[in-house]
Amino acid sequence: MVKKLLLSMGFMSAFMPAMAFAADDATPAQLQGAIDAVWVMLAAILVIFMQAGFALLEAGSTRMKNAGHVAGKTVLTFGLCAIAFWAIGFGFAFGDGNGFFGTTGFFVDGTEEQAQAAFSSLSFSDVPIAIKFLFQLAFAGVSLAIAWGGFAERGKLPVYFIFGILYTVLVYPIVAHWVWGGGWLSQIGMQDFAGSTVVHLQGATAALVATLLLKPRIGKYNKDNTPNLIPGHNQVLSVLGVIILWIGWFGFNPGSTLSAMNDGFFGYIALTTNLAASAGAVAALVVSWIYFGKADVPSMLNGVLAALVAITASCAFVTPRDAIIIGAISGILTFFTAQWFEKAGVDDPIYAFSVHGIAGIWGTLSTGIFATPELAEKVGVGKAGLLYGGGLEQLGVQALGVFGAFLFVLVLSYIILYVIQATIGLRVTEEEEITGLDLSEHGTYGYPEQMRKTPGGTSNSV
Amino acid sequence: MVKKLLLSMGFMSAFMPAMAFAADDATPAQLQGAIDAVWVMLAAILVIFMQAGFALLEAGSTRMKNAGHVAGKTVLTFGLCAIAFWAIGFGFAFGDGNGFFGTTGFFVDGTEEQAQAAFSSLSFSDVPIAIKFLFQLAFAGVSLAIAWGGFAERGKLPVYFIFGILYTVLVYPIVAHWVWGGGWLSQIGMQDFAGSTVVHLQGATAALVATLLLKPRIGKYNKDNTPNLIPGHNQVLSVLGVIILWIGWFGFNPGSTLSAMNDGFFGYIALTTNLAASAGAVAALVVSWIYFGKADVPSMLNGVLAALVAITASCAFVTPRDAIIIGAISGILTFFTAQWFEKAGVDDPIYAFSVHGIAGIWGTLSTGIFATPELAEKVGVGKAGLLYGGGLEQLGVQALGVFGAFLFVLVLSYIILYVIQATIGLRVTEEEEITGLDLSEHGTYGYPEQMRKTPGGTSNSV
Amino acid sequence: MVKKLLLSMGFMSAFMPAMAFAADDATPAQLQGAIDAVWVMLAAILVIFMQAGFALLEAGSTRMKNAGHVAGKTVLTFGLCAIAFWAIGFGFAFGDGNGFFGTTGFFVDGTEEQAQAAFSSLSFSDVPIAIKFLFQLAFAGVSLAIAWGGFAERGKLPVYFIFGILYTVLVYPIVAHWVWGGGWLSQIGMQDFAGSTVVHLQGATAALVATLLLKPRIGKYNKDNTPNLIPGHNQVLSVLGVIILWIGWFGFNPGSTLSAMNDGFFGYIALTTNLAASAGAVAALVVSWIYFGKADVPSMLNGVLAALVAITASCAFVTPRDAIIIGAISGILTFFTAQWFEKAGVDDPIYAFSVHGIAGIWGTLSTGIFATPELAEKVGVGKAGLLYGGGLEQLGVQALGVFGAFLFVLVLSYIILYVIQATIGLRVTEEEEITGLDLSEHGTYGYPEQMRKTPGGTSNSV
Repeated sequence: MVKKLLLSMGFMSAFMPAMAFAADDATPAQLQGAIDAVWVMLAAILVIFMQAGFALLEAGSTRMKNAGHVAGKTVLTFGLCAIAFWAIGFGFAFGDGNGFFGTTGFFVDGTEEQAQAAFSSLSFSDVPIAIKFLFQLAFAGVSLAIAWGGFAERGKLPVYFIFGILYTVLVYPIVAHWVWGGGWLSQIGMQDFAGSTVVHLQGATAALVATLLLKPRIGKYNKDNTPNLIPGHNQVLSVLGVIILWIGWFGFNPGSTLSAMNDGFFGYIALTTNLAASAGAVAALVVSWIYFGKADVPSMLNGVLAALVAITASCAFVTPRDAIIIGAISGILTFFTAQWFEKAGVDDPIYAFSVHGIAGIWGTLSTGIFATPELAEKVGVGKAGLLYGGGLEQLGVQALGVFGAFLFVLVLSYIILYVIQATIGLRVTEEEEITGLDLSEHGTYGYPEQMRKTPGGTSNSV
Repeated sequence: MVKKLLLSMGFMSAFMPAMAFAADDATPAQLQGAIDAVWVMLAAILVIFMQAGFALLEAGSTRMKNAGHVAGKTVLTFGLCAIAFWAIGFGFAFGDGNGFFGTTGFFVDGTEEQAQAAFSSLSFSDVPIAIKFLFQLAFAGVSLAIAWGGFAERGKLPVYFIFGILYTVLVYPIVAHWVWGGGWLSQIGMQDFAGSTVVHLQGATAALVATLLLKPRIGKYNKDNTPNLIPGHNQVLSVLGVIILWIGWFGFNPGSTLSAMNDGFFGYIALTTNLAASAGAVAALVVSWIYFGKADVPSMLNGVLAALVAITASCAFVTPRDAIIIGAISGILTFFTAQWFEKAGVDDPIYAFSVHGIAGIWGTLSTGIFATPELAEKVGVGKAGLLYGGGLEQLGVQALGVFGAFLFVLVLSYIILYVIQATIGLRVTEEEEITGLDLSEHGTYGYPEQMRKTPGGTSNSV
Repeated sequence: MVKKLLLSMGFMSAFMPAMAFAADDATPAQLQGAIDAVWVMLAAILVIFMQAGFALLEAGSTRMKNAGHVAGKTVLTFGLCAIAFWAIGFGFAFGDGNGFFGTTGFFVDGTEEQAQAAFSSLSFSDVPIAIKFLFQLAFAGVSLAIAWGGFAERGKLPVYFIFGILYTVLVYPIVAHWVWGGGWLSQIGMQDFAGSTVVHLQGATAALVATLLLKPRIGKYNKDNTPNLIPGHNQVLSVLGVIILWIGWFGFNPGSTLSAMNDGFFGYIALTTNLAASAGAVAALVVSWIYFGKADVPSMLNGVLAALVAITASCAFVTPRDAIIIGAISGILTFFTAQWFEKAGVDDPIYAFSVHGIAGIWGTLSTGIFATPELAEKVGVGKAGLLYGGGLEQLGVQALGVFGAFLFVLVLSYIILYVIQATIGLRVTEEEEITGLDLSEHGTYGYPEQMRKTPGGTSNSV
């Protein structure tokens, strides 16, 4: 009886297409489309999950009095980014247009019609446009989360609104268009498989501008300009954040194939990615042990991330052995540049520019050094690197891409942040900073029971 | 030599079917079955992971002295739910039967024979019955986790056992059968794609009954009935919980297609889901900023969840733009109703009824307003909504569904909880509540080092 | 114009193979290869994510003064393991060779050539070798993470380096080769579907050796040899860790099919896995309630893990009902053996041997009891168990496998750790242990703001 009811009601018919497919008439193209869609959806979910990684890493690496603010603003700004990228950013980045930005595809409607009319730069993949959008949104969100590192523990909440939206619609999509949307850098064969430059260097450059304009945190530098350590309050959260980011990178790099076919090439990319991250962890820990006399956990975590940032450009172009070399060099480079910036008076609270900027530059250049001719041909972008018979040509293209992206983001971020500073201001007051941004920006502590124990809160002493 | 050994031993033959498939004789139906199975398995895993989200959100939103209890009971009750739903609940929900409940399919054995004999309401999808079961179990587990919000910080541990089992076998599956199992609401074309009513409103209604019967927590209300804020102890954990829930929703809504085919329709659903969540975050934060003068992080987190709850019914029926509208309205509605309930003397510690109930009702109604004729036809359930030429018909069906589900759960939960209250009691003693449920129900603090610092623990002062 | 540019530049051609596939010429074998690759990649990601679960569980189950160390060393040792297993371990485990270890396939290069030449034991699956490697690496990493439980709160950091590498290249891969790489245990039909013995018993045996050689923590035992409780500092983190591990097991067990085909058999395995875990949670909580008079959260968490460990061997061989029985028995066995070991003077800080060793043995034996003839035939390994007409034969094979693996790891781990102890030493000094390993091994507290409140730190009093 129920079966009769089922046939007479709307519910069953809902999925008749699925049933029909199952009746052995799905074409290979339809099947492949479904496989690719599942793979890229999984990758998009992993990359969106990286927001949790950034929230935990940034909260764990800063002080208790700012923890609720740091974590909460991640959710807010991903929300802003999601809407702004849907309305405008994705069109600027991947819409058809000219060599500098896209002019079509605003307000993504998820239809095949819009996909075909507006996004020819993405037409190499058969994944539905809604999933392509989510995957690219996840990347824009990561880039923005990186930028926030430079604002940490002193930026005003309204700045997160304004800069978050402007970065999503004006900064990020332009460089993304240059490299991935058919723009001038893609035309000269720049190799940036998953965004060492597009995602990481861009975010890090904005962070650098922010940290320079905001000036160091209260208590960071002594009168003789020597820096004090302001340790993050929770290494367990930082570790969890980094593991989530590591996991997220299995979507970030392998997902950038936008396909699960091609003899499992995405698996090869996961292999190089994982080896680089491992090498970065070990190299950075060992270096910190030699340099400090103690094996420093936060330095190791930065080493993991730096290696992942570097292998992001080159993951599809290099051998497993060279991935280890690239990752280890990243871990070491990031350690020493972080020390250098700190001593030079740049208070970058979670070392965003060292981790994502220096390693982003190194990673983008590394493929010009280590790209093999076979893999360059397999990917179909650019040529072999310096060590594999390619001479300096590809390395030159990579250097030009790094320089162009860095300069563009430097100038544009500076203009935006300068105008904000001159109008509503970038930084909370001295009193608010001492009390903590949880109270000043949100009215409650993120850890109310732990902060009220000692009057004024323990963190205020710094 | 090893090859010969391999051929002579059992191990290799284990996967001969797989090898045979690889020899180019897999049929399109088999391939599609595998793709759909992977997709729904991924979705089930994401939705089961939401238990971590609820554990963190509820623990973070309550006090330190109850944190181990709150987190631990999530694991316990998901375990109880998994066994009870396997034995009985799934059969009541999806087994063939009558318009009100299923009468077949108890003790799921994972065989194709039982699948065909007992579960015709799920036969539209080619996913293996074991995975269908896990996906639906994950939904039942979410609904139960929502209900626990109403018991927080004062419910006795035995109540979690008893109500957990009864909710899983008697409450949840009945309404699930009405809407998704071929019952009377599905017959009249109710649109509830992934369960704004089935999962969220049901859980929230049980939470409301619990919070009313349990009465407010000690210290929540002053003698003049004005409420005090009892802040949660850890916003970082709450944020992590909400991001995990957001991620989980990419399984919840898109996974409810039970297929990866259909031109990637699950990707479209992910798009509307993500836009709604984003709009809910921004809207709730802005409203709290205007209303409190401070941008309240917990209110924003509730806005995210409320928007996700609302778009759950309508995700497959509405345009991206309307998803933003639905999400933003949810964030605002939830904020104001949470304020209203609190002032009216209802102490719902994590605002379960506002977030899952009010937004569940709004979301179920929203598809009667915003459903487009094209999408209603694509899904094959119901008709277009009020704003797209459908008149009041679909809205009426939606309202009837909301009313029926609410009334059923209200009455049945009340009966169950009333009997528990009259026999073993619902609430811990006043002394136990002041000491905290970690000690009273489990004998140890969840945070033993932090709680013993100040004699009696810091939280006892509330 | 952009289209012309796109056609003229390298980028588009990058994915021409994908485009070609979409043009309806993908073969069933290629499509199946892609589906299987996506499924096993997902499983590998889930199992690698278990590192976060172990980091949180171990950190949450130990004291604040060691939290940064415990969490941080997880990242370090997974990095070491990833490189060592890539270079050597994977070849020893899965390379072709003799009945005891592989002799080919070192330095995995990800090519089909190496896959065919070196890894015939894995040739039953069409998944790309890079993904097979990552999946197996994830298992080695889990086994190593289990071993660390025995070192907790007193092992020196250099030991983690040395033992981590030696375990990865000498211990783990040998037994893996015996059971999964075509070695002598696979030849006699040992049933260990996903590694109750290979992964869990091995790790637990190393942990037992470590905990015996390291001796109990300061303060664990009184002069009359009665044990003191040293509670973990954060049950919320422990719960989150266990949920992540539970989720990870959906990759661990179902992913061990190395295929998504076979009528969704991986879904069946997920069903038995989930039921066992649920039964373990409930059984362990109830037993602790009866035994202690309080429902102990850490005991319940151990019950979940023990049940998952036990069902790991038998998940593909037993009925859902028997999975519940196996899980429940695990939860109870682990509870009582943990009590027994503690009273016998073995200070195993997170009960690694009870949870992974006792339950690993029970699980490996359980399939010799409960394996059904149909499922044994479907998997193609071994025979039916004692209760399903198989007599004692399979049970004998299982017992032999357990005995062989236990003995091998016991002896080899003892030799390695004895040599380390005799040279650089295994344990930190008494003073360092009292101060905490965060300071002694890394120079900073993991929770600097919380530890400096009370001079010397609160945990030092133990």
